[in-house]
Amino acid sequence: MQNRVLVTGGAGCIGSDLAQELLRRGSRVTVIDNLSSGKVEHIEQMLIHPRFRFIEADLLDGDALDFAIGTVDEVWHLAANPDVKFVEGDATDKDLKQNTLVTYNVLESMRRHGVRRLAFASSSAVYGISERQPIPEDAPARPISLYGATKLSCEAMISAFQHLFGMDCWILRFANIVGPKVRKTGRTVIGDFIARLTEDPTRLRILGNGQQAKSYLLSEECVEAMLYVVEHAPRGLHVFNLGCDDRLPVERIAEMVVEAMGLSGVRFEYTGGEGGWPGDVPRFTLDVSAINRLGWRARHTSEEAVARAIQASLAAAEVLCRS
Amino acid sequence: MQNRVLVTGGAGCIGSDLAQELLRRGSRVTVIDNLSSGKVEHIEQMLIHPRFRFIEADLLDGDALDFAIGTVDEVWHLAANPDVKFVEGDATDKDLKQNTLVTYNVLESMRRHGVRRLAFASSSAVYGISERQPIPEDAPARPISLYGATKLSCEAMISAFQHLFGMDCWILRFANIVGPKVRKTGRTVIGDFIARLTEDPTRLRILGNGQQAKSYLLSEECVEAMLYVVEHAPRGLHVFNLGCDDRLPVERIAEMVVEAMGLSGVRFEYTGGEGGWPGDVPRFTLDVSAINRLGWRARHTSEEAVARAIQASLAAAEVLCRS
Repeated sequence: MQNRVLVTGGAGCIGSDLAQELLRRGSRVTVIDNLSSGKVEHIEQMLIHPRFRFIEADLLDGDALDFAIGTVDEVWHLAANPDVKFVEGDATDKDLKQNTLVTYNVLESMRRHGVRRLAFASSSAVYGISERQPIPEDAPARPISLYGATKLSCEAMISAFQHLFGMDCWILRFANIVGPKVRKTGRTVIGDFIARLTEDPTRLRILGNGQQAKSYLLSEECVEAMLYVVEHAPRGLHVFNLGCDDRLPVERIAEMVVEAMGLSGVRFEYTGGEGGWPGDVPRFTLDVSAINRLGWRARHTSEEAVARAIQASLAAAEVLCRS
Repeated sequence: MQNRVLVTGGAGCIGSDLAQELLRRGSRVTVIDNLSSGKVEHIEQMLIHPRFRFIEADLLDGDALDFAIGTVDEVWHLAANPDVKFVEGDATDKDLKQNTLVTYNVLESMRRHGVRRLAFASSSAVYGISERQPIPEDAPARPISLYGATKLSCEAMISAFQHLFGMDCWILRFANIVGPKVRKTGRTVIGDFIARLTEDPTRLRILGNGQQAKSYLLSEECVEAMLYVVEHAPRGLHVFNLGCDDRLPVERIAEMVVEAMGLSGVRFEYTGGEGGWPGDVPRFTLDVSAINRLGWRARHTSEEAVARAIQASLAAAEVLCRS
């Protein structure tokens, strides 16, 4: 029997790569997405595929969710408020709604429909500022952002539902995921730098002091790793960090973008401070030895991943400009 | 200036003891409680106190909450769905609403009103079944009940709000708290045994195999410890286990209740299984060395605490019968 899967947030950068790969592997794929940050362009080429279906709906809409979950055997839950940054004046319940409440809705609908397999896109943001570096999965989670806090809330509910209702659940804590696709909202550092330098190639605003250093992973490798974990840790509750084992300073990314765009003499302007924004974890490396032991390892360092993402983003921008 | 404090869930067993002690120490005390499990009897004697005020309201009611928080400097957030047990057929969103959403409401109202001090009643249920025994505060939290999951969600949001909005927050993870007061709902093991033996003194139903063993702490000592922590760990975010350093089997509690009621020849009937109910953590001891190092230590073992709670509960029942 063909595996019938639901990808929530499947029109997003990672979700659409995942949907594509699941189709390639023979699954019947339903994508549900409210297109708040996802884009139709990301799923356009799949729309005519006979095993693909797209539902445009918000996961706070219980009927649409029930309709989708009632027809699948497995859920890949990637839908979330993608914007980690909280800016003074933002509503503080955006993450509560789009992460915590939506994930409860997904779990409860799964329970009612007897769907027992869930892979969840969590985040390294759950750890907050960890004393242990690289951060292992069993480090205490002390989130400092609303995004991280609500991702941890989702994990907690998944843990309880898994135990109470006999589910199999995979929690994947992502490093910073980069790739050729650029989000409408919640810009990544690469997209931000390219956009700013395109507008004004003489100077570049860098959030914080530029010394923030994080782990990066290519979207295609992230998808590969998710699928690998679900396949190789078949039952129960599993929590895996998903990234590579080094980190890259933001300032270095700025230099790489400048170089890739063929610019020189760009003036770097720092907004100052340790973190890039309130709730930013300025420096972290994930301990990825657990997923390595399972048999998967990132093929690119953070710098290589970012370099490829820069090239792909510039090529995509070029295509956009030409069209 | 007198300290103006809000105790949410202040008509509950622990909340009312806390409110009483805060009054005794000179604070102006507002209690907010929806009386879903709290009782007017618990706060009756405080109602005429000039520094006491009671608001009967649900914390999902934003206006009542804003009204209360707008007049205080400090919040002791004890309101919660007190019933850890999930029974097949129960709504799965009871804890989500009364724990997660209510706590978000409290935090958001505090942020808007510039109230920056929060003590939160969390639970050992956040840990789930821990490999590390006794369980230290930095053990990974993998809740197996909806109650534990939503308490962890609350902690996560507190952690983010504390960081983002410069609050001082104290998270207290309670062992099983026992005392003379018996809840209307969500019966504790002592209340359950007394009620059953009062009805039929020849036999006693014991959930699980009776080998469940947990840590117990007297309500009055719990209140004392909460106050001690807030006083002695003044700034930032603090997480403390709150209990004693041993544990007591459920079967032993059954024997103690039988003895205290002057019964003999009672037949113990076990419902069977490791845990007492779905989501029950059958055996745990909390590592309380952190609070010990801070300078506070429980004065009673689990067995002594339970013995005193049994005596007090029987005396209270006697009073009720006589009146």
